[in-house]
Amino acid sequence: MKTHQTPVVGIVGGGQLARMSLQAAIPLAIPIRVLAERADDSAALVGADIAIGRADDLQALLAFAQTCDVITFDHEVVPAAHLAALTEAGHVLRPSAATMAFAQDKLIQREACAEAGLPIPPFALLSNRHEAAEFGRAHGFPFVVKAARGGYDGRGVWVVRDAVEAGRIVGELTERGIPPLAEAFIPIERELAVLVARRPDGETRSYPLVETVQVNGMCREIIAPADVSLALAEEAAVIAERLADLSGVVGLLAVELFETGGRLLVNEVATRPHNSGHYTIDGAVTSQFEQHLRAILDWPLGETSLTAPHAVMVNVVGGADGSDPRSRMAEAVAVPGAHIHLYAKQPRPERKIGHVNATGDDLAETLARAHQAVGFLQGDRGKERE
Amino acid sequence: MKTHQTPVVGIVGGGQLARMSLQAAIPLAIPIRVLAERADDSAALVGADIAIGRADDLQALLAFAQTCDVITFDHEVVPAAHLAALTEAGHVLRPSAATMAFAQDKLIQREACAEAGLPIPPFALLSNRHEAAEFGRAHGFPFVVKAARGGYDGRGVWVVRDAVEAGRIVGELTERGIPPLAEAFIPIERELAVLVARRPDGETRSYPLVETVQVNGMCREIIAPADVSLALAEEAAVIAERLADLSGVVGLLAVELFETGGRLLVNEVATRPHNSGHYTIDGAVTSQFEQHLRAILDWPLGETSLTAPHAVMVNVVGGADGSDPRSRMAEAVAVPGAHIHLYAKQPRPERKIGHVNATGDDLAETLARAHQAVGFLQGDRGKERE
Repeated sequence: MKTHQTPVVGIVGGGQLARMSLQAAIPLAIPIRVLAERADDSAALVGADIAIGRADDLQALLAFAQTCDVITFDHEVVPAAHLAALTEAGHVLRPSAATMAFAQDKLIQREACAEAGLPIPPFALLSNRHEAAEFGRAHGFPFVVKAARGGYDGRGVWVVRDAVEAGRIVGELTERGIPPLAEAFIPIERELAVLVARRPDGETRSYPLVETVQVNGMCREIIAPADVSLALAEEAAVIAERLADLSGVVGLLAVELFETGGRLLVNEVATRPHNSGHYTIDGAVTSQFEQHLRAILDWPLGETSLTAPHAVMVNVVGGADGSDPRSRMAEAVAVPGAHIHLYAKQPRPERKIGHVNATGDDLAETLARAHQAVGFLQGDRGKERE
Repeated sequence: MKTHQTPVVGIVGGGQLARMSLQAAIPLAIPIRVLAERADDSAALVGADIAIGRADDLQALLAFAQTCDVITFDHEVVPAAHLAALTEAGHVLRPSAATMAFAQDKLIQREACAEAGLPIPPFALLSNRHEAAEFGRAHGFPFVVKAARGGYDGRGVWVVRDAVEAGRIVGELTERGIPPLAEAFIPIERELAVLVARRPDGETRSYPLVETVQVNGMCREIIAPADVSLALAEEAAVIAERLADLSGVVGLLAVELFETGGRLLVNEVATRPHNSGHYTIDGAVTSQFEQHLRAILDWPLGETSLTAPHAVMVNVVGGADGSDPRSRMAEAVAVPGAHIHLYAKQPRPERKIGHVNATGDDLAETLARAHQAVGFLQGDRGKERE
């Protein structure tokens, strides 16, 4: 690293994670540069130091990295070869190229988990239709086919009912050069998530286990803490810390978990701030965005306890009419204690364009307040709560 | 106002209040432009949309105002004639030129308070040495001479011991065209402050009464809530709301109060976010910066209750050695629950360059944590606490 007073943090990608990182960096006086694709990207609208360039353009990445002391990421879609080239050129990537590969590739994740004895659903890499049928015979139908790379928010995941459907998807993915991964279908009682931060020396700190409520495979609501036994919460923290070590992450790591028959199974891993941690901005002593910055700067990690007995987050998504929640702010901010976070994104239908946080002593009341504000923002007053 | 989805807020001045307003505006997706004097001003370092120009340059102000829907202020030093010209040109100033005159001129303030029957120390405008001696005879020595305009953080205030000293300062101020104001010297038991927000329709909402600890006339520590009787806290809120109405403020108004013999006296009034309200970023449901934005956009005001039994703020000031607190962040962020806010200003001796907020159940412990972090930032570990 160079000898600035505070190292310059470069964030590759200009989405809402970069935007919220910029917000967290202001009080800490951490200089942030963002490599955004477009000048109207969520983070580009609020950052003082924006470079325009694509994350798949190696020259843009190298030029950007020259102006930064430590590079981190808004998303996982930087090509692995480019990450290797940045590392080769002497740039400090946090998380590293190896950690990013772990986050980018579900097969690498699954194999590492299996080797470490972490609880995961039965899985297999499918090379052809025959192996798909075989997996169905061994683990039953329906089962799940996932694109090993490139999926998010429920995209790249299919529940297949029979060998024909499985074979068709395996064929399509293989044709596109994406390895298809089979996983046994798990009857899920609840989905949970843990966020853990890890410093370069391996020190970790976990946030409380939260419940994630999904709609169409997309996280839509977070309840912190999850209403689980102490034993289950501790097991989740142990899993998260093992994964942090396995992946060698520097920064944040989020683990999505399935609860099934009183057990936990690892579902997905991301190595960055995560939708399941947005509640921390208003609901935890240290927000996940500040924590990520602390970790990548090798500063002591912050306290992760909640600031109230219950903290919740509800996502704001674009409505069918394409109207903008910014036109309804005056209604939404009237909801007591509703902390509104908009990403200034075009409100396409079902696109995540913001979230509302709330904290309180009573979970039902706290959740109702968050949903009320979201209802105003989405313009769906009168519509049924999802 | 123009027809943007959210009006564009223009802030005249690029200091730390503008910087913290930018931070508050990100989650609410409020577009902010800042008119900063220099590109390295505190707010200019973190804003996406910065115009460079001086607040005493009418052409710069007019050009800036053209690009904004509502204009607000980081400080009170915009010339009254320029505020009148902006108003004349049809720009929306919040607070208005009349309110800014109230904030800029202690004589206008005092006369309005006297007329409204608000409790203030005995005062007089001094035209010459003779009147200074007369005031001393009537109210005793020492008494206080204040510059009616242009003072802040203890500057522009003198405690005079006799008629000769009083006469000298009156002469100097008069020569510089600044009206000298005499005030009786009040034996102060405590200094307190209230923050109130007011919307265009006159709706107000007050924050809890806080105690302000001054060092050399400069606010250095805030304790929220102040440990006073309910009656005194209510009296303070009534005074603040009366002052908000009297001044016609749209946005925030801060009242500094003296507690003397169980009574309150109005000391100073500012019509903007205020040092005494910095604790609200981490210690109140709605930060003063968000509240100011809500008020000037005519949005519903946010809840002003504390998020914990005690919330404190301790200012960070530049040390004698000129070293930068940014070089000591790793030590400071290790203090549990210390929320650090640095303004990225040059650390000149005694200059306010940041603050630390903390909240907790026990006041002494909470305050100790904030002071510990400030001690690290100021590099005065081992030195005595002031």
